[in-house]
Amino acid sequence: MLLKNLFLKSLFLLIISILLSFQLYSHEEELYLMPMPREIKRLQGEFIIQKDFGINILGPYSHRVLKAKQRFLSRLAKRTGIFFSLNPEKLLLNLEYKKIAKLSLFMNESYLLKISENNILVRAETDIGIVRGLETLLQLLRNNGKNYFFPAIEIKDYPRFPWRGLLIDVSRHFMPVDVIKRNLDTMASVKLNVLHLHLTDDQGFRVESKSYPRLHEVASDGDYYTQSQIKEIIDYADERGIRVVPEFDMPGHTTSWIVAYPGLGSISMPYKMERAYGVKNPVLDPSRKFVYKFLEKFFKEMSKLFPDPYFHIGGDEVNGKHWNQSNRIQKFMKKNKIRNNKELQAYFNKKIQKILRKYNKKIIGWDEILESDLPKDTVIQCWRDKKILYQIIKKGYYTILSNGYYLDLCLPSSYHYLNDPIPEQIELFDSEKKRILGGEAAMWSELVNAENIDSRIWPRTAVIAERLWSSSDLKDISNMYKRLEKLSLYLDSLGACHIKNQEMMLRRLCNSREISILKEFIRVVEPVKYYSRHKSRPYTIFSPLSRVVDAAIPDPSFPRYFAGLVDNYLQTNDKGLENKILEILMRWKGLHSRLLQLSSNSPVLKEILPLSNNLSKISEICIKAIKMKNRGETMDIHWLQEAINALETAKQPYAELELIVVDSIEKIIKSLEK
Amino acid sequence: MLLKNLFLKSLFLLIISILLSFQLYSHEEELYLMPMPREIKRLQGEFIIQKDFGINILGPYSHRVLKAKQRFLSRLAKRTGIFFSLNPEKLLLNLEYKKIAKLSLFMNESYLLKISENNILVRAETDIGIVRGLETLLQLLRNNGKNYFFPAIEIKDYPRFPWRGLLIDVSRHFMPVDVIKRNLDTMASVKLNVLHLHLTDDQGFRVESKSYPRLHEVASDGDYYTQSQIKEIIDYADERGIRVVPEFDMPGHTTSWIVAYPGLGSISMPYKMERAYGVKNPVLDPSRKFVYKFLEKFFKEMSKLFPDPYFHIGGDEVNGKHWNQSNRIQKFMKKNKIRNNKELQAYFNKKIQKILRKYNKKIIGWDEILESDLPKDTVIQCWRDKKILYQIIKKGYYTILSNGYYLDLCLPSSYHYLNDPIPEQIELFDSEKKRILGGEAAMWSELVNAENIDSRIWPRTAVIAERLWSSSDLKDISNMYKRLEKLSLYLDSLGACHIKNQEMMLRRLCNSREISILKEFIRVVEPVKYYSRHKSRPYTIFSPLSRVVDAAIPDPSFPRYFAGLVDNYLQTNDKGLENKILEILMRWKGLHSRLLQLSSNSPVLKEILPLSNNLSKISEICIKAIKMKNRGETMDIHWLQEAINALETAKQPYAELELIVVDSIEKIIKSLEK
Repeated sequence: MLLKNLFLKSLFLLIISILLSFQLYSHEEELYLMPMPREIKRLQGEFIIQKDFGINILGPYSHRVLKAKQRFLSRLAKRTGIFFSLNPEKLLLNLEYKKIAKLSLFMNESYLLKISENNILVRAETDIGIVRGLETLLQLLRNNGKNYFFPAIEIKDYPRFPWRGLLIDVSRHFMPVDVIKRNLDTMASVKLNVLHLHLTDDQGFRVESKSYPRLHEVASDGDYYTQSQIKEIIDYADERGIRVVPEFDMPGHTTSWIVAYPGLGSISMPYKMERAYGVKNPVLDPSRKFVYKFLEKFFKEMSKLFPDPYFHIGGDEVNGKHWNQSNRIQKFMKKNKIRNNKELQAYFNKKIQKILRKYNKKIIGWDEILESDLPKDTVIQCWRDKKILYQIIKKGYYTILSNGYYLDLCLPSSYHYLNDPIPEQIELFDSEKKRILGGEAAMWSELVNAENIDSRIWPRTAVIAERLWSSSDLKDISNMYKRLEKLSLYLDSLGACHIKNQEMMLRRLCNSREISILKEFIRVVEPVKYYSRHKSRPYTIFSPLSRVVDAAIPDPSFPRYFAGLVDNYLQTNDKGLENKILEILMRWKGLHSRLLQLSSNSPVLKEILPLSNNLSKISEICIKAIKMKNRGETMDIHWLQEAINALETAKQPYAELELIVVDSIEKIIKSLEK
Repeated sequence: MLLKNLFLKSLFLLIISILLSFQLYSHEEELYLMPMPREIKRLQGEFIIQKDFGINILGPYSHRVLKAKQRFLSRLAKRTGIFFSLNPEKLLLNLEYKKIAKLSLFMNESYLLKISENNILVRAETDIGIVRGLETLLQLLRNNGKNYFFPAIEIKDYPRFPWRGLLIDVSRHFMPVDVIKRNLDTMASVKLNVLHLHLTDDQGFRVESKSYPRLHEVASDGDYYTQSQIKEIIDYADERGIRVVPEFDMPGHTTSWIVAYPGLGSISMPYKMERAYGVKNPVLDPSRKFVYKFLEKFFKEMSKLFPDPYFHIGGDEVNGKHWNQSNRIQKFMKKNKIRNNKELQAYFNKKIQKILRKYNKKIIGWDEILESDLPKDTVIQCWRDKKILYQIIKKGYYTILSNGYYLDLCLPSSYHYLNDPIPEQIELFDSEKKRILGGEAAMWSELVNAENIDSRIWPRTAVIAERLWSSSDLKDISNMYKRLEKLSLYLDSLGACHIKNQEMMLRRLCNSREISILKEFIRVVEPVKYYSRHKSRPYTIFSPLSRVVDAAIPDPSFPRYFAGLVDNYLQTNDKGLENKILEILMRWKGLHSRLLQLSSNSPVLKEILPLSNNLSKISEICIKAIKMKNRGETMDIHWLQEAINALETAKQPYAELELIVVDSIEKIIKSLEK
């Protein structure tokens, strides 16, 4: 009886202590992690960071871990201002791992992170797991007003998909090495693991070739990576557990190749470097032996330079016009029973595949290569339509998704976030699901340069990274945006230029350090979406990307905040909310005249005046409407019609920009109508 | 008579037209050029920049000119938003030059720039003159609210001194290639022509050596330039007409060398990488043949890598302790009749000079090498005391000045600006003056890293650049600051990070995008000057450089503005000025409590609270004093004493920062006392 009592008592105490300390952590938003780990258990207490904080490495020699440790300590010091001891006596952060990973598609990236009051453990199978775990740890940094600390916690984490990439197009606008490096840093911080470099296109050939030096000498305007820079990039990526997949887009998108070596082209004509954008005619000639000999030697060289087992061969947007125009090619097709251009491209792809197989490279290509009857280890990148994804896996290929992840279309984070590679509504066998390897955010660079590319990639790419790493259940948009805002600030401190270069661009636009007026404007507009900008202006690689539309960002946060205020106000009729809204509307009402004045010292700003004029007008109308309602006055039908006309006008884009608070203002006005 | 009349009439008209159009330009401040050109004639009218603006190159093929043209057009497009035609019909900017310069000490950098309403001419002897002229042209860009234009003008320009440098210490904190490149861009924009890289020191060896790989492998923590990166830097500099002078500091400041190859050291002991700063004991052994054999092979390799005819061998701060401790060296000295350590260093220097002469390199060194009886083509860099400059030239050497140009001391621009290499009060023969080749701003990096180095170099270095390029007559401080402010904004748009990284650091410190409170504080403080920071904290290369003192800049503009307000107010007693001052004081009065609140989410800010507390207190006192005066009340002596105590307290530095508006506040309070 006594024993039983004691047992029950102990059990009771045990349960209590479990309840107190091991409570399943439910307020995920407070952790501000992105991507959200797979399993989180919040524990009691916190680990206070002090001067005497040392790191203990328990595993085989790993350059990656040593570098990750350096980065970790330097970032922690920067954020806390703590002068860590050079020779700390207490080694409180233990990094335990078994082996050095070789970068590859199915490498083990999992880790366990356990923070208690007295020490921290990151345990992983591989050194890359340690790299991932340290990124999570840094994101956990908090303070209580007096000390910096990590909350006690236990995290088990591993990726949902093995291929989580970012494509950077360095052909349309070249991106110097430092742009690539700072993006590798930010990629690592959200656990992306593939940098896909779109190295060649009509507008430029961006890598040094020692076998065919005219490629980079003649077809790059001097902007290309030397081979030692490529090695630098690969090493930098490797330290962060990121693969580098090179893309040599062919047989289309090859003007630069053909300008350098006209014998590669399908017809004889004077080829010139392409300065404009779109689908162009120049295309490699699949009927010539010379072309394959050339590519054999070229890929032999590149296979040594790029260690990744996958080579991307492009394959998109071949219009076949030059093939149709060439008698030689037409004869070749007849002779070889090639019935159409699709089959001709398939013939070409198979030849390329055989060349690359020789150098132990597997192929990845855009979804146009689906018809080419390639080996089943080929990866096909779905971009044109998500439906193609299912054709790809039904045919037995591997696939990664980029449709829905195109960053150049300037769509909101929420759209990308909800774009799951495996949607629920379609039934797939597990064996088929496994062939969906992941996805890639794609940063095409027709309309971005080294100055503003960060503001197109970040922070939106982080939500794609979460979609590819974290549980498919995560779908809370407002929680996502909260965490994204914090992450965005963190990326800024790691070297991303999405915030700082925007401010520089505003200073240049204002011709002054005083940018508050333009800042007020820019946070309520965004660039027009999809490919509309190309319709409004004949862009080339030399066009300035320094106008307001280039400084503006997709999916700014203020309109979301305002929409929230409005919805809340319309539901509650709360006076405090009304006053907040009126205050904002008053500022917008006065914005136009202030911008008008600003533009008198900056002609480049004139193009946005129609937008500010429209905003000021509808704000004035909305203020009046609210006041009328408060006085119990009814709306005159003519007045209302004018208001509606003004709202319609305000929806029109100017200077390739759209006002994105019109809907919220419209909601207020229309609600008062009733 | 008629003829004579006609002649006089013509003459009269000619004179009038000359007076109207060729008026000597007197309002230099309106041009905002820096460095100010030597001869400026303002002409009537302006050249409007339009879409169809082409550039015509008239001279032999020059990579520099082609690149300069690219940069010019891209910057012009960025600042104006103009979509320039790809194939402009009108070639309105003519670049005329005779030859390709080889980068060297006395290369011709002069140019003529003539802007008329219809076209622009840059004419130069060499392609480097064209590069200089295009920088001036870009600085002339203006707008009239509708169009962008260049004012019609004629400029004849040429440098006062041939050696106008910036030293960057990449040893104490390594500076990645992109930091060097962006600084080369800004250097070019103010016409500096020498980048002096301090490549080695106790804390790190920063260049890859293929002959002695342990140098960079063991003694750099992995942070060094590969040889291909060095070539990249040299090419980038060459395109901008900038020489790269490497420094290999010896025989002192060589811990890193000796850690890699202990046989180079003067005594046998376990050497370790130096993490702290100051003058250290490790020193090369001048008595060993091995040392000279080593350096012979090393310099042979480096001579090929660095094309400049000058190699900097350091020579500073040898304390000789290890020489004294070595019996071997003492014996060697006796045997060779070397009486003291100075003579031993001279012996070493002469050996090094002979090695370098073999590879066609001349020597430059710090002023300690003055005693070494070196060849007269040696350049001696004056740093310890400006008096040494005269000893150097009196002895027949060449010299450049760095004393008074040390950027790490955090002194104001005005101080550097007035520091002329040739002051008026000392009589020198012309032949002696010619041996003063110029000067170098020196950015020692004990307390700067890649994040904040720009804010220490820029914009202050621009005034040193002007001192070395422009007429010695220019001494107008307030005009200098006006132009400097404009230039600072221009450098920001060229890629300098002095503004943008400060804002990032403030966001990190505030843990928020909302930084206005901290910004208000940071503009009234500056880092403590000279070497005081080293006294207050034991800095090492791992110490965080992310605190408020690191984000603060030397010589901020707001205190100058405030001092001007105060002086003006005290002279005029103007009520408008009084109100402006009161408004500022009111903000400062409330600043402390706002910072207190901010720091509750950011412990790293706590250290500045004593400063904001002091500022708030003296602001409150000053407000009271002004109000008492306005009410005609007299000051109580006790109250005044307390006020004076508070002012004295407010002069104390905290967190390595000083309030720099105390003097102005003191002026107001003391003036009211009367």
